[in-house]
Amino acid sequence: MPDDFLEHCLQILEERGVRLEDIADCARYLQADYHVDLTAEELEESVRAVLSKRETQYAVMTAIELDKCAEEGKMSDKYLTDALMRDEALFGSDEVLAYGICNTYGSIALTNFGFIDKKKYGIIKKINREGKNTGRCNTFLDDVVGAIAASAASRFAHRWKREESE
Amino acid sequence: MPDDFLEHCLQILEERGVRLEDIADCARYLQADYHVDLTAEELEESVRAVLSKRETQYAVMTAIELDKCAEEGKMSDKYLTDALMRDEALFGSDEVLAYGICNTYGSIALTNFGFIDKKKYGIIKKINREGKNTGRCNTFLDDVVGAIAASAASRFAHRWKREESE
Amino acid sequence: MPDDFLEHCLQILEERGVRLEDIADCARYLQADYHVDLTAEELEESVRAVLSKRETQYAVMTAIELDKCAEEGKMSDKYLTDALMRDEALFGSDEVLAYGICNTYGSIALTNFGFIDKKKYGIIKKINREGKNTGRCNTFLDDVVGAIAASAASRFAHRWKREESE
Amino acid sequence: MPDDFLEHCLQILEERGVRLEDIADCARYLQADYHVDLTAEELEESVRAVLSKRETQYAVMTAIELDKCAEEGKMSDKYLTDALMRDEALFGSDEVLAYGICNTYGSIALTNFGFIDKKKYGIIKKINREGKNTGRCNTFLDDVVGAIAASAASRFAHRWKREESE
Repeated sequence: MPDDFLEHCLQILEERGVRLEDIADCARYLQADYHVDLTAEELEESVRAVLSKRETQYAVMTAIELDKCAEEGKMSDKYLTDALMRDEALFGSDEVLAYGICNTYGSIALTNFGFIDKKKYGIIKKINREGKNTGRCNTFLDDVVGAIAASAASRFAHRWKREESE
Repeated sequence: MPDDFLEHCLQILEERGVRLEDIADCARYLQADYHVDLTAEELEESVRAVLSKRETQYAVMTAIELDKCAEEGKMSDKYLTDALMRDEALFGSDEVLAYGICNTYGSIALTNFGFIDKKKYGIIKKINREGKNTGRCNTFLDDVVGAIAASAASRFAHRWKREESE
Repeated sequence: MPDDFLEHCLQILEERGVRLEDIADCARYLQADYHVDLTAEELEESVRAVLSKRETQYAVMTAIELDKCAEEGKMSDKYLTDALMRDEALFGSDEVLAYGICNTYGSIALTNFGFIDKKKYGIIKKINREGKNTGRCNTFLDDVVGAIAASAASRFAHRWKREESE
Repeated sequence: MPDDFLEHCLQILEERGVRLEDIADCARYLQADYHVDLTAEELEESVRAVLSKRETQYAVMTAIELDKCAEEGKMSDKYLTDALMRDEALFGSDEVLAYGICNTYGSIALTNFGFIDKKKYGIIKKINREGKNTGRCNTFLDDVVGAIAASAASRFAHRWKREESE
């Protein structure tokens, strides 16, 4: 049922070590230059809104399933498993899936994603490291989390601007 | 090994019922308005070039693995399995992965993809139907095949134009 | 002032020969396979919503200004003027600007755009022709109109689906 | 004539204060984490290759023409002129045009662009500032320069990887 998908996504994210507040903290980091005293709580509503979109939800499910299938050795394609377990730098499909989330929040979301994907702040840094040094695969997860944070920050900026101009 | 990835991709595509010449025929269809007497053979080289790019190769492997994991009941996410088995119209991640392939061939490739994705010509029609009426899941496959054909047609158009202007 | 931008955009579109109902008719055409008895009026609200987004509004203004500057000989770059007046097939930036509009409406909007851009239905056909046979330049306009129609159709499909599932 | 477009683009960039070596330095900055001792000269060939693509060339011409038309008061749309002269944060079409360049170099180019667009390194910082404090308009220029640098860095990374694996 559609309305349960938000809860479902929050749950599978948490099972992979990512909480709503971790993503909100990344979104806050992206907005920090513009609003110094913004708190992560203020961005939680935005993260929730991004996670309520059907396309985001399916992207999150697809990303986490791919990581799990790779780390559990369920895939039939050994070259794919290998690329995912190594977090191959030129893989590409992980960022592409993330762009699918950002796209619906406009061009600022994409810029935000590029920045946090390279900076690897907070939870993104944590899961990225975890995916490299252990048997865990977080190849798709870190990008999807970055994309949600980038989209939430962009959504917040657009709303804040709109209120300001009213 | 990098160079084997082209052969690997041709093989896993064939296992799912898609041959190089089927994709070339879709590419020819997309160029038919501009070059009436073009043959599918002339476009095979372009399809092969698209399939030689690392990002295309990983997208093909990811797409086929997702379809297979869904139809073999290997996924742990039952909502995702359900969406893939139904070829849910608003799923979105299948087209997003396909855009990742088209993007590297410029804006005409994206337009071509949109057209053939709606028209469902040739092999795309066949695998799309197969994915709806049987236990087969071709949700990602039809988009990836459309994207390769669209990119090959765009690549051909750009080269033809270049030669003409020399 | 923000709220006037919708009216401003409707006005500059009309000055270039494109009315709200023409775009709604293109959106209806894109949805016709799914909802046979849909009327263009039912899609006007969706077109209006797409045109209310700030990013769409700026894209429309940019597109129309470029066409006008080209046809009025105001540009300092003669190669650019030449490409725009010829509606050069491999130009690309016109479709790129259009994708910027579609992106915020998800992957179906992009597919819709690719289809109508090749089919050139209704007002798109008219302005495309006008831009080729006269001193008029509609190189950017036809793509932007196609993108608004494609986005409106996608927005309608998503809402219709949502209501159905409630 | 096609082959002259590269020289034409280098010339109009230089007229706006951007030299080939400035862009190469931005590309080097983007690769610095991976190759510490890389020189800007080694990336000049990559920048040149990006600027040899037809879609890049037209995007550069379009971007510079828009900035010039705005700053010379040639535009008929005063809202557009105003947004461009202010370098309005939520404008969007400037980044969209830049993505059109990055897209053809894969997903890493997009990530690179997001990073440098926020960091505003080197020449990008200079033209961004110049566009804010004077009568100059560099709203489109800084994004296009960032996109070329991001694409050149991505192209370099892909080639370097390929050679390494041979």
